[in-house]
Amino acid sequence: MPDHNAAQAPAARPDPASAAPVLVYDLGGTWLRAALADGGGRLLAQLRQPTPQEGPAAVVAAMAAMAGKLDPDGRALAVGIAAPGPLDPVAGLVLQTPHLKGWRDVPLAALLGAALERPAHLHNDATLAALGESRAGAGLAADPLVYLTLSTGIGGGIVIGGRLFDGRHGLAGELGHILLDPTGPDCVLGHRGCLESLASGTALARRARAALATGGIAPGTPMAELATPAGARPPDAPMLAEAARRGDAWALAAFRDAGDALGRGLASIIATVDPQTIVLGGGLTGAWDLWAPAMAQSLAATAVTWPDRACAIHRAALGDDAGLVGAALWMGDLLAGDPAAPQRAASPSR
Amino acid sequence: MPDHNAAQAPAARPDPASAAPVLVYDLGGTWLRAALADGGGRLLAQLRQPTPQEGPAAVVAAMAAMAGKLDPDGRALAVGIAAPGPLDPVAGLVLQTPHLKGWRDVPLAALLGAALERPAHLHNDATLAALGESRAGAGLAADPLVYLTLSTGIGGGIVIGGRLFDGRHGLAGELGHILLDPTGPDCVLGHRGCLESLASGTALARRARAALATGGIAPGTPMAELATPAGARPPDAPMLAEAARRGDAWALAAFRDAGDALGRGLASIIATVDPQTIVLGGGLTGAWDLWAPAMAQSLAATAVTWPDRACAIHRAALGDDAGLVGAALWMGDLLAGDPAAPQRAASPSR
Repeated sequence: MPDHNAAQAPAARPDPASAAPVLVYDLGGTWLRAALADGGGRLLAQLRQPTPQEGPAAVVAAMAAMAGKLDPDGRALAVGIAAPGPLDPVAGLVLQTPHLKGWRDVPLAALLGAALERPAHLHNDATLAALGESRAGAGLAADPLVYLTLSTGIGGGIVIGGRLFDGRHGLAGELGHILLDPTGPDCVLGHRGCLESLASGTALARRARAALATGGIAPGTPMAELATPAGARPPDAPMLAEAARRGDAWALAAFRDAGDALGRGLASIIATVDPQTIVLGGGLTGAWDLWAPAMAQSLAATAVTWPDRACAIHRAALGDDAGLVGAALWMGDLLAGDPAAPQRAASPSR
Repeated sequence: MPDHNAAQAPAARPDPASAAPVLVYDLGGTWLRAALADGGGRLLAQLRQPTPQEGPAAVVAAMAAMAGKLDPDGRALAVGIAAPGPLDPVAGLVLQTPHLKGWRDVPLAALLGAALERPAHLHNDATLAALGESRAGAGLAADPLVYLTLSTGIGGGIVIGGRLFDGRHGLAGELGHILLDPTGPDCVLGHRGCLESLASGTALARRARAALATGGIAPGTPMAELATPAGARPPDAPMLAEAARRGDAWALAAFRDAGDALGRGLASIIATVDPQTIVLGGGLTGAWDLWAPAMAQSLAATAVTWPDRACAIHRAALGDDAGLVGAALWMGDLLAGDPAAPQRAASPSR
């Protein structure tokens, strides 16, 4: 579903770590975006195009062409890429992602670096969005900050002490794959009953398809009117949201169930990380009113927390820009000589 | 159940951060332990006694009497207490713990500090055990390190960059309360289907009681022989382990189910933290052979991981000493001027 986050980035952002120009990319399954930015996370010029579906070489060629337009003189001092996980930020490898068909162990950072003739760095899009929201978005200065993107899939990132928290292999914050129900459905990576299998856009769409196939959608209801005419598009999360807003009981219950699962997922995250703030972004936040009350209810019922030690839950502020802003801030940290950033980019993890 | 961890602390430990004498306590529901130690985690002299059950004042009086024996001249430069969570290490408050009946919002650090006329510091026993195992036990130098204690309850701790990771309110690492099954039983804190409700000693004992009450234990089986004679003790995890070792099918299945739940819990922890090593301690590790194969199987089936980026799972090395050793190391960090330790002990968290 398209990211229809209503909130916009705040006009005022904290002072940049660096004013150096950087080139950043956000590689999604549908859109490839690029920006010339500065290390303080300000996006100076942007481009976007449909993501080439022919594989890594076509994507790298498109990235290089965008660089030629955004930075024709090669002024950018660092190149950062946000891409869907799971990936290895130290080795610059896209390990596997259902959002890019057939990509497995692709050395994207090295490929783009060779094309642009300068080092490129790769990180998880949701992890970089966490950095963006913590410095320029809805979680300003929160420590720890946890970010989840609720979209086709569910990804996440953790910021501790203002820095990205990578874990040992750059796989920390894969929050879509925490396990919530041993009898639940499988997600695209095959994890039964994980958060993504219960509360992502894909999970909602799959549930609607199954209900349509088994007669679970009553004739004459809004869902039936939207989904069953000849030539109707396959059900997806925006369709469910539209039906729910027309009062469809089935769709309303589906969003409540997703919110309930999300609340239990947040409770597990709180028990583990004890964050000051959790920021929720991604396309499903456009249906916030449909699932957030159920999320709050199940979170209150299940979290290890105390009234005066509660975790704040905020809706993301950066919208579609979160990955680009986060990548720019990450590059700014690297250029500013943050002792963590170059080490993270250069040291072996295994 | 008694902690019958077979493994002992290694003879060689890393150089101490400090040779300063410190006084440390480990407050459990059954035993109160105390030691004179140094800031490098070496225990120089130890005492233990049954935990007074009359409440905080009796416990503090017992602690003060132990200090008089271990450190009659008041040489200890810092006082550290390991206690069951959830607690607030910054405020020095025991928030609530099922292991100490009736304790709620008890300012234990202040009470002991007043009795000993010097500052005392309080932290979660499992969190301090994590620090102990990371510096002097089974997870030497692992980063991040996650520790779980599998005992009457399930607690945990996280060490990042060699330091305790507290989260915002000192509640990070409450890993017994990650949620795994929405149809599971309630734990003592009322969390339905959390790890503690499925894989703790209490969970195993409750399951046995229920099976006995409903005829689920067949006559003539080892479980029936151990549990049903008049005057037999109520079933507990050691009884189940004994029955399982005699080939009792019911008890073997109960341990397998606990191991399966633990494996899924570790998968959620790995998806969140991406630790280099997870160390498992506590009394249930005495039954390691009965549940670890099921744990490994469910972990392999559910974790977001790659063969060359796997998380190592180790059995704890410090046994009953883990909390005392961790408390001593924490006090050593504080005395050595670790920028994190005094700040953690002194700054407000809210």
